[in-house]
Amino acid sequence: MEKKIRIGITGYGNLGRGVEAAIKQNEDMQLVAVFSRRDPESVGVEDKSVKVLPITEARDYQAEIDVMILCGGSATDLPEQGPEFAQFFNTIDSFDTHAKIPEYFAAIDKVATNSGKTSIISVGWDPGMFSMNRLLGEAILPEGETYTFWGKGLSQGHSDAIRRVPGVKAGVQYTIPIEEAVNRVRNGENPTLTTKEKHLRECYVVAEDGADLREIEETIKTMPNYFADYETVVNFISEEELKNNHSKMMHGGFVIRSGVTGAGNKEIVEYSLKLDSNPEYTASVLVAYARAAFKMNQMGQAGAKTVFDVPIGLLSSKSPEQLRKELL
Amino acid sequence: MEKKIRIGITGYGNLGRGVEAAIKQNEDMQLVAVFSRRDPESVGVEDKSVKVLPITEARDYQAEIDVMILCGGSATDLPEQGPEFAQFFNTIDSFDTHAKIPEYFAAIDKVATNSGKTSIISVGWDPGMFSMNRLLGEAILPEGETYTFWGKGLSQGHSDAIRRVPGVKAGVQYTIPIEEAVNRVRNGENPTLTTKEKHLRECYVVAEDGADLREIEETIKTMPNYFADYETVVNFISEEELKNNHSKMMHGGFVIRSGVTGAGNKEIVEYSLKLDSNPEYTASVLVAYARAAFKMNQMGQAGAKTVFDVPIGLLSSKSPEQLRKELL
Repeated sequence: MEKKIRIGITGYGNLGRGVEAAIKQNEDMQLVAVFSRRDPESVGVEDKSVKVLPITEARDYQAEIDVMILCGGSATDLPEQGPEFAQFFNTIDSFDTHAKIPEYFAAIDKVATNSGKTSIISVGWDPGMFSMNRLLGEAILPEGETYTFWGKGLSQGHSDAIRRVPGVKAGVQYTIPIEEAVNRVRNGENPTLTTKEKHLRECYVVAEDGADLREIEETIKTMPNYFADYETVVNFISEEELKNNHSKMMHGGFVIRSGVTGAGNKEIVEYSLKLDSNPEYTASVLVAYARAAFKMNQMGQAGAKTVFDVPIGLLSSKSPEQLRKELL
Repeated sequence: MEKKIRIGITGYGNLGRGVEAAIKQNEDMQLVAVFSRRDPESVGVEDKSVKVLPITEARDYQAEIDVMILCGGSATDLPEQGPEFAQFFNTIDSFDTHAKIPEYFAAIDKVATNSGKTSIISVGWDPGMFSMNRLLGEAILPEGETYTFWGKGLSQGHSDAIRRVPGVKAGVQYTIPIEEAVNRVRNGENPTLTTKEKHLRECYVVAEDGADLREIEETIKTMPNYFADYETVVNFISEEELKNNHSKMMHGGFVIRSGVTGAGNKEIVEYSLKLDSNPEYTASVLVAYARAAFKMNQMGQAGAKTVFDVPIGLLSSKSPEQLRKELL
């Protein structure tokens, strides 16, 4: 057995916990430490042999960590932590603010190229696996349309928005692909569809005692950006029902490329995910790419990378020979 | 506009014709010549401005061709042509004799490393896109099972076998996934299934006048290797019906990874293809990889490669910046 790849985690929320779980499924990897802004005593890391340390001390552990998996949020954590950590570590992150990817890439690339580290950004399923399928779709079938559908899945941002409505005690929101739109795409009709024509939003809301349910429903349905443009369904339920039936962080979706070859032959390619746990699956992708970052760095390939730059053979713990023999 | 990538084709059957059609959909590429063992006069290349030449003269065109796409068969053509052409050209092929891939890779790698050419072998959808999804499946979800289903699709090998049965005038065979098996896999049951428990074989046969239909059916159903182990259905039809309803080379299938993360969360990933034209889709994949072979060779990455070794960004005609901005 070769030496294990030593992993560090920054940030121990749902994603960080998912990374800890995923590392346990990979025998060639080992979790060394979790770095957090919280009091280390309060960060209940599951494996008690793993060090829990203040994030400010991370740079002292350069010699002990091969790849740092950054599990902070894209809004405020990663724009700061990404370039900071790329000075000292090979890094993986799931930066998902699509519009800001170019500037984030540039910031990381500058630092990582200087430090000789390898940083793979925007890893996960979207951005990540879905992006790869969008690219493969149009590169292989240049004449055609690409469709991305999300769901059925729990949307964290939209659930937060519901909870901010006056009179709402708790609630969740599911993004659901509209079946008719999906069927038209799968049939190769190549319809023109906006995001709101592809998805509906279903809300499960627990109201405060005595709250005006009609007003809550109206406030949600007319909320700009989040709901106003969508077909939105609001269901009121009990706190118990919310806890029992709506506490899983399920998600998924699909990318469809519907193209034409030759004299009008239809070719339809679909990649789909059905996930019980969005954070655990995302974490599993991050961990596989941590392996690739480690190998690319050993090969001298420093700088910022995305899933488009990584030969997928590097994600596996198997040798190239074994992969060709078993999986090609 | 940069200079176009200049492509050559060896072998002008269904796949070669598909490559010609696919090149027309890619503005950064141009078909220079088709090389054939047949009398050039008899090779009906669609675009009359394309040179048609004897395959024996191919090596005289090294300076005019950036990538040669080898469209011969895996049984006898490619084992000979692959190493031969890798001496003079960057090459792409769809070598699909799974058991012989390691030795084929080694033979090509030796030659291409010496000649400084880049040869990507076993490109297409299986091997190819399906292989990539098998690899991604197990690398991302190490605890789980991978299932490959083929069909509904026309199997060339099995159709040929039917046509060799005495009394058979013409016929085709479809490989069809067994729905119950598919559903069990999609539900995350992780059943143990052999190839024959996943697929049935449906034959459409045109019998010679006066032939004994029962004997034909019996001969087909008991044919070792091809049909004996499978649930096989034989339908007798007229020559006209065969021509009208069974002349498309449709195919497809799906790769499903059914895995578990954390404390028993199920994660199901599915990649599926529904193809009107198997050879045209395969050809479209070959052409995208021809672009990658050209770029890898310019970067000095010589030798034999597979889809596992190629960063998918190289398949696109777009720049890395554009890909990050538009597709990530």
